[in-house]
Amino acid sequence: MELHGRHLIADAPSADAADTTFTGVDPTTGDALSPPYCDATDAEVDRALAAAEAAHSQLIDLDRESRAKFLEAVADGIMGLGDALLERAGKETALPAARLTGERGRTCAQLRQFASVVRDGSHLEPRIDHALPDREPLPKPDVRQMHVPLGPVVVFGASNFPLAFSVAGGDTASALAAGCPIVVKGHPNHPGTSEMVGRVIQSAVRAAGLPAGTFSLVHGRGHAVGLAMVKNPRTRAVGFTGSLSGGRALIDAVATREDPIPVYAEMGSVNPVVILPGAASERGEAIANGLFGAVTLGVGQFCTNPGLVFALDDENTSALVHRLEALAADAPDGTFLHAGIRTGYRAGCDRLDAVDGVARSGRADGDGGPGGARATPAVYTTDAATFRDHPALAEEVFGPSTLVVRCPHRDDLTAALATLSGQLTATLHATDADLLGAGDLVALLRDCSGRLVLNGFPTGVEVCPSMHHGGPWPATSDVRTTSVGTAAVRRFLRPFCYQGFPQHLLPDELKDGNPLGIMRLVDGAWTDDA
Amino acid sequence: MELHGRHLIADAPSADAADTTFTGVDPTTGDALSPPYCDATDAEVDRALAAAEAAHSQLIDLDRESRAKFLEAVADGIMGLGDALLERAGKETALPAARLTGERGRTCAQLRQFASVVRDGSHLEPRIDHALPDREPLPKPDVRQMHVPLGPVVVFGASNFPLAFSVAGGDTASALAAGCPIVVKGHPNHPGTSEMVGRVIQSAVRAAGLPAGTFSLVHGRGHAVGLAMVKNPRTRAVGFTGSLSGGRALIDAVATREDPIPVYAEMGSVNPVVILPGAASERGEAIANGLFGAVTLGVGQFCTNPGLVFALDDENTSALVHRLEALAADAPDGTFLHAGIRTGYRAGCDRLDAVDGVARSGRADGDGGPGGARATPAVYTTDAATFRDHPALAEEVFGPSTLVVRCPHRDDLTAALATLSGQLTATLHATDADLLGAGDLVALLRDCSGRLVLNGFPTGVEVCPSMHHGGPWPATSDVRTTSVGTAAVRRFLRPFCYQGFPQHLLPDELKDGNPLGIMRLVDGAWTDDA
Repeated sequence: MELHGRHLIADAPSADAADTTFTGVDPTTGDALSPPYCDATDAEVDRALAAAEAAHSQLIDLDRESRAKFLEAVADGIMGLGDALLERAGKETALPAARLTGERGRTCAQLRQFASVVRDGSHLEPRIDHALPDREPLPKPDVRQMHVPLGPVVVFGASNFPLAFSVAGGDTASALAAGCPIVVKGHPNHPGTSEMVGRVIQSAVRAAGLPAGTFSLVHGRGHAVGLAMVKNPRTRAVGFTGSLSGGRALIDAVATREDPIPVYAEMGSVNPVVILPGAASERGEAIANGLFGAVTLGVGQFCTNPGLVFALDDENTSALVHRLEALAADAPDGTFLHAGIRTGYRAGCDRLDAVDGVARSGRADGDGGPGGARATPAVYTTDAATFRDHPALAEEVFGPSTLVVRCPHRDDLTAALATLSGQLTATLHATDADLLGAGDLVALLRDCSGRLVLNGFPTGVEVCPSMHHGGPWPATSDVRTTSVGTAAVRRFLRPFCYQGFPQHLLPDELKDGNPLGIMRLVDGAWTDDA
Repeated sequence: MELHGRHLIADAPSADAADTTFTGVDPTTGDALSPPYCDATDAEVDRALAAAEAAHSQLIDLDRESRAKFLEAVADGIMGLGDALLERAGKETALPAARLTGERGRTCAQLRQFASVVRDGSHLEPRIDHALPDREPLPKPDVRQMHVPLGPVVVFGASNFPLAFSVAGGDTASALAAGCPIVVKGHPNHPGTSEMVGRVIQSAVRAAGLPAGTFSLVHGRGHAVGLAMVKNPRTRAVGFTGSLSGGRALIDAVATREDPIPVYAEMGSVNPVVILPGAASERGEAIANGLFGAVTLGVGQFCTNPGLVFALDDENTSALVHRLEALAADAPDGTFLHAGIRTGYRAGCDRLDAVDGVARSGRADGDGGPGGARATPAVYTTDAATFRDHPALAEEVFGPSTLVVRCPHRDDLTAALATLSGQLTATLHATDADLLGAGDLVALLRDCSGRLVLNGFPTGVEVCPSMHHGGPWPATSDVRTTSVGTAAVRRFLRPFCYQGFPQHLLPDELKDGNPLGIMRLVDGAWTDDA
C-alpha cells in the first residue's frame, strides 16, 4: 500500500490544509517518516461528521449478520496487510515485532469477538412485557424495549497501542458493533499505521455496501482537531485513551456543548500493588521478578503499569526490595513510543528524586539516544510517612518505574490505601493465612479500583466478557463502563421502547416467537424461549 | 405524625438556619401550611453526605434479602401513614384524593418491584470467564465481574409527583435497590409530605439496623442547597426530575467538579403526536377525546403531556380539531401544584398567542383564584409554515395546552418532525393502511424519542421491566438510562472485576455453584445453571 498522507473523509481522501504538515518520526533515530500529514480543518471535521450522521439513519436498521461480517472483514483486511503493517508500526513506535504481532492478533480477535456479540444479540437486551387488557383499574399496555445505536462516535487513537487501541482498536470495534458510524482522530505519532488500517476499514465499508460515512479518519497534531470533533453537534459519544490532561480537555470541551454527550476517557492509573507479609515471606523473589516484569513490560507504557507498591517494613520486604533494586540496576534501556514520553518520564522521575526520603535504583538514562526516546527503568523506595506527607508521590509516572512504600505498621498500610484516587486496577499478593484478616484491605482496594487481581499482575488485560477495564476518576471519566471486553458495546447504545406495536411492525428481536433465539427478559423472567 | 419542620440528617433532626424559613402553601387558597422549614446549610449538607459516605462502606456488602426487606418496609411504612399522608399531600399540591391514592399505590408498587429486582439478582449482571491455564501463548486468568453500588446518591424530589417521584419515589427506590445511600433534597412545595415520608424511611433504616447515613432528607427553597449537594465531593450520582433550566443548572454545577459524576436529569418534553389520515378518518373523534384527556390529565402537569400534534390538513383533521376546540372551550379550570406553574403556563400561552398564524380555543383563566394557581386548558392550532418559521413553537409549555400543526403535504409533516429536539415519548395514530408507507415517520420519531406509542397516549407510564422513560437531550441529560421501570437500578451501579480469586473469597453471585440461582454470562453463554 502506497501511503498518500490524506484524511479519509467518508469515501474520499482529503487534505485541505496540506501546507502545514507533520510526519511520523522513528523514535530510535529521530528521522521523519514520509509521507507528510496535515491537521484536519474544521470543514473536514464537519464533513466527516455530516457523513456519519447521514450513515447513521441507514446503519441503525442494518441486520446483525451484515454488521458481524463487516467486523470480520476488517479483521481479515488487517491480516491482509501482512508484514507491511507491522513494519510501518514498528518504524513509527519502536515497538518490537513480537509485540506488534501479538497486538495485531488481539486487534483482530477483538473485532471477531464483537462480531460474535453482534450475532448473539443479547447485548441489545430485549425486554418484553405483554399487555393485560383486563387489568384494573387501568389496562396494562404491551411494552417492549431493546437497545439502538447512539449515532456518530468520535474515537481517539491511543499512542501506546498503535493497533489494538487505535484506528481499528477496541473503541472502534465496540462502536461499530453497536451500529454506530465513527470518525477516528488518528494519533499523530503513528499516522502511517493509522492510514493503512483506515484504508482497510474504508475498503470493508465499500465491499459491504455500507454508507460511506460509516467510517472516516482524520489526522491532527495539536488539540484543535480533537476539540472540534467533540464539540461538533452531530457527535453523540466520544471514546478516548490517553493522558489525564488530554481527557480533562475533552471533558471540559464537551461541557461547553448545549447537549451533554457521553465521554469515555480512559486515563492515568498507578495500579497499586499490596504485598502482605506471608506472600513476601513465601515467594518474595518470585513477586519481585514478576513485578519488575510488569513494571518494564513495553517500556512501562501500559495503563495497567504497577506504579505503587505497598508492603510492611519487615525483612522479607527488604529482601524483595533488594531484588527489585538489583533488577533495576542491571536493566537495559528501552525506546519509548516517542520522545515526548521520555520528557514526561524524566520529569516524573525528577519529581521523585527531589523528595527527601525517596531512594532510587536504576535510571542511568543518558541522553536518550539519537531519537531522544530511550530511557531505563527505575525502582524507588520510600516509607509511609514520606508517602503521606507528599501526595504527589501517588501520581502516575508514565514509564518503567515504580515506587515501593514500606509501611511500619498495618495501620500505615490501610491509611495509605485510603488516600488513593481512582485506579483501573489494584493487586493483592497474599497467602491464605494473609487473607483471613484482609477483608478491610480488599474493601479499600475495591473502592478505589475497577479490577482487583489476586496473586497476579495487572498488565495483560484479557479481552473477554467478564473483563472490566475502567474505574473511578481519574482512572476514567465514566465509572459505569469498560473500554476492554465485550461489555464495551453498551457504551454506544441507548434503550428504546415500543408501546402497542403489532407483531409485524416490531424488530425481530422483540417478536413473540423469538425468531432470533436471543436471551430476553419476558414478563420479568429471563428466557431464550419462543 | 406531628411535623417538626426539620431536616433529617442521618438519624438526627436538624435546623441550623431556623431563622430563615418557608412553608408549604395551599395552592387553592394561598394559605401557608405549618410548620415552617428552613434551607439546609452547607454544613448540614456535608454532614448528610459524610454520613452517607460512611454508610456506603457497610451497605455495599449488605445481603440482598435484607435490602429487599428494607424496601418493602418503606412501602409498608408509607401505607401505615394512612389518610394523613394523602391529606397533607392534597393540601400542599391540590391533587385530588383519587390521584394521590393511585400515586401512593404506584410508589409502594415501585418499592416492591425493586425489592423483587434485588432478590432476583440478575441486575448485578454476574459474568464469569474460567481460567485456561494451558492456553498458548499466554494462560488465561480466571476473571469474574459483577456490579457494585456507586456510593452516595443525591435525589431531588419532583413537584409533580409528591409521592411517586419525591422522597420515596423512583430515584430513591432504584438507588436504594442498587445499594446506595441517599440524600434527598425535598421539593419546597410539599415539605410536609416530604417530612412524613422521610420519617418513614428513617424509621425503616433504624428498624433494619442499617447505618444511619443510609438516608437523609434536607429542605431548601432556592438553588443553593441543591447546588451544594451536587458539588459535594462525596456525591457519586444525582437523580433529578424537573425543568430544563433546573437540570441545566445541576449539569453546569457538576461540570465544575474535579471528578465528573453521572447526572440523571429528566426534564422537559413536548411529546409529539402524529395523526395519519386513515386514523383521522376512521376514529378522529375518539382520538380527539383521548388526546384532550391526555393533555388535561393532572392539569397537564405530566412530563409525558402531549404538547404538539401533527396531522395532514384535510377535512378529517378539521373535524378532529373542531372537536378538540369544543372540548377546550367547555373545559373547567384546574388548580396547579403551585402558583409558579401558572406563571410559567401563562407566559408560555402568551408566547403562542403572540404568534401570527396561531389560533387558540379555551384559556379564559381569569385571575388564578385565591391561591393564584388556577388555569384552564387551551388548544392552539397553526400551519406547517408558521411552525417552521417560529422554532419557539416547539418548546414545552408546562400545563394543559397543546398545539396542533396542520401540514398541507406529507413532506411538510416529515420536515416538521425532522426539526424536533429530544423527547421522552412520541406517538403515532395510524391504521394498518397508514402504516404501510410510514417507515420514514417511525424512523424520525424513534430518532428523537425514548418511547414510541402506537395508537395510544403517552401519559400513564407503566412501571415494568420493559418501560423506558428517557430520551435524547433536552428530554434527559443521559440518553442511556431510564428513570421509570426496573432498569433504573443500573444508574447507580458500576462494574467490578475479580481476577484470580479462590471460590471462598468470591461473592455468592460469582461462585461456580451459582448458589443464588442467578442468570449469569458464563464463558460467553447465558445460564442460570450451577
